[in-house]
Amino acid sequence: MLKVPQHQVAGHEAGVGKLGPLVDESGRFYKPLQGDERGSNEVAFYSSLPVNSGIPEHIRRFFPTFYGTELVEASDGSGLLLHLVLEDLALGRVNPSIMDIKIGSRTWAPEASEKYIEKCLKKDRESSSLPLGFRISGLQIYRSKELGFWKPGKKAAQKLSTEEVKLVLRRFVSSNTLNDSDSKPDCAFASTVYGGSTGILSQLLELKAWFEDQTIFHLYSCSILVIFEKELALEGKSPGAQIKLIDFAHVYEGRGVIDHNFLGGLCSLIKFIYKILTAPSECKIEVSAKADQKNLTASDNAVVADRKNLSDSDNGVETDQKNLTAYDNGVVADRKNLPDSDNGVAADRKSLTNSHDGVVDDHKHITYSVNGVS
Amino acid sequence: MLKVPQHQVAGHEAGVGKLGPLVDESGRFYKPLQGDERGSNEVAFYSSLPVNSGIPEHIRRFFPTFYGTELVEASDGSGLLLHLVLEDLALGRVNPSIMDIKIGSRTWAPEASEKYIEKCLKKDRESSSLPLGFRISGLQIYRSKELGFWKPGKKAAQKLSTEEVKLVLRRFVSSNTLNDSDSKPDCAFASTVYGGSTGILSQLLELKAWFEDQTIFHLYSCSILVIFEKELALEGKSPGAQIKLIDFAHVYEGRGVIDHNFLGGLCSLIKFIYKILTAPSECKIEVSAKADQKNLTASDNAVVADRKNLSDSDNGVETDQKNLTAYDNGVVADRKNLPDSDNGVAADRKSLTNSHDGVVDDHKHITYSVNGVS
Repeated sequence: MLKVPQHQVAGHEAGVGKLGPLVDESGRFYKPLQGDERGSNEVAFYSSLPVNSGIPEHIRRFFPTFYGTELVEASDGSGLLLHLVLEDLALGRVNPSIMDIKIGSRTWAPEASEKYIEKCLKKDRESSSLPLGFRISGLQIYRSKELGFWKPGKKAAQKLSTEEVKLVLRRFVSSNTLNDSDSKPDCAFASTVYGGSTGILSQLLELKAWFEDQTIFHLYSCSILVIFEKELALEGKSPGAQIKLIDFAHVYEGRGVIDHNFLGGLCSLIKFIYKILTAPSECKIEVSAKADQKNLTASDNAVVADRKNLSDSDNGVETDQKNLTAYDNGVVADRKNLPDSDNGVAADRKSLTNSHDGVVDDHKHITYSVNGVS
Repeated sequence: MLKVPQHQVAGHEAGVGKLGPLVDESGRFYKPLQGDERGSNEVAFYSSLPVNSGIPEHIRRFFPTFYGTELVEASDGSGLLLHLVLEDLALGRVNPSIMDIKIGSRTWAPEASEKYIEKCLKKDRESSSLPLGFRISGLQIYRSKELGFWKPGKKAAQKLSTEEVKLVLRRFVSSNTLNDSDSKPDCAFASTVYGGSTGILSQLLELKAWFEDQTIFHLYSCSILVIFEKELALEGKSPGAQIKLIDFAHVYEGRGVIDHNFLGGLCSLIKFIYKILTAPSECKIEVSAKADQKNLTASDNAVVADRKNLSDSDNGVETDQKNLTAYDNGVVADRKNLPDSDNGVAADRKSLTNSHDGVVDDHKHITYSVNGVS
């Protein structure tokens, strides 16, 4: 039985009389084939992937698995329709935080029709695509069991200003993700989600190294999907941070030229993420400065040095996993026992013990191993 | 006494009734200030350079020295006009080969006026800017004392197709730079001009590393000028390969965002140059295959192993510096004694002994030392 995906953040949504993707319970994602050449383009692209020797093994994991095409009942009730059958990227994910980031300041190919170029150029100019080289097409950020997801409207997401995009990229990895405009994101999960040798930045840098070299494809209007699970991070586990490339309806042959449009946008995104990891002062670090110094030792890098002497204070750091507290801007680690407090600092030890310096070292290592024109 | 520059390859040229740049004999280049905000923008940009702490020392050398502004007689006879006074980049250069490469698939800023955007977009779409991320705004390639320069018209240069741009980038560093469309560029100077630790690729990679990081400026319609002297290369000396950034009439503040448009185009150019250094098969290497194996040992990498046994053959490699021969497609090393022959292989030992592998090693080294988001 096909159903509407639970965690779709961008694109057309399935509904009564509305055509959109569907999922089944075995982990397959059914994307309706667009009737024009966009549909056939995307089928051709996915079909070519397994036999394309120009894609290195370590890059293949960034593409969703393709299972072929299948005639299934369209979500809009119009009857049987050919769908792309893909891996459901949300399968097995519990309350995933997801961003769909459309890469490139230009979403149209030089070869596209006048009409299409005009339409896209307008959207690119009205969104952050032109100034930033990418736009957030949609997102959901998990807050807590009680509060659910923060999921701004797609139109609002796409029209974010530069400063708002910066804020959203910080909120995405923060424990204080309320709609409260006063609350500065604490970036509590930045080091575990964006940082580290398997984090988002590392994956983006691998992709960058490939895009500096590959001249097979030009990907217009293609997105990078960023996923992680906050609850895993809170349990001290790996948050399963992962990027995937999606949406290949506007793929063109590279013909010996790199995809400078995608690469430029990707580098811009990388710079934003990198900045979050290396400029913690722009996150909500003043919490530690305000905190009761007798009760906690929280440095700029939010490393908890003395775990025995921590109490639940107004600005306190709480690390006792048995008695965790949800603060107004805090982390929900144990939903059984949730008194309120302001300005809590994330209790996740794994995240906290990754110091700022550690992140930079990781990053350097990644840069030198995966980077370069090769 | 101001005069018309001898080696200008792009932009408006000074002449009777025509406004263009002038040079003096002390090595200064006078660029007429454009009357509108472009002129004041460029003055503001150059004026800010010396005091801008965001530009690292090793990057400053890529900008021409700025000496201020000065009222001088305009070249069009219209009287005194304010000019930017800059370093004359051709000063001291003997028969320089020069390319003016306008970087970026987009030559307009998101903030520009509708009218200006429309005009630029048209040019970007009609040139190689959109597909390649850069366009050759103009060039001159020195051939020989007898033949002078190959200098295609500016309009022709700007409308080169992808394949033609590839060809020109090869011709630029070839000894056989005739207009003969049958002659495949031999890329005889590729390793000394593009390659090596101080070559063009190395400089472009330094610039790339900075553009991955810098969020101070967005440079629209800015060019990279590439210069070298073929005659120095022929004499076994360093050809003085150098890049300079020029034309800053459309500089905007970066405001925390990298210049993804410039960076994308720069990476595209880098890939083309890199390909020339690492895919010699696309240059005129078949010469060696056709050559008399008794008389020369020329590998795919054009390394001359036996210098004692080389003779002037139809396809011969000639390394006797005293008696050098100009071939139809060959290198002119000594213009006193110039019999004709077909398919000569460059006699420049410095260039020839830089093997293909050597170039790649150099490049890897450069990548790891200057590259990366930092």
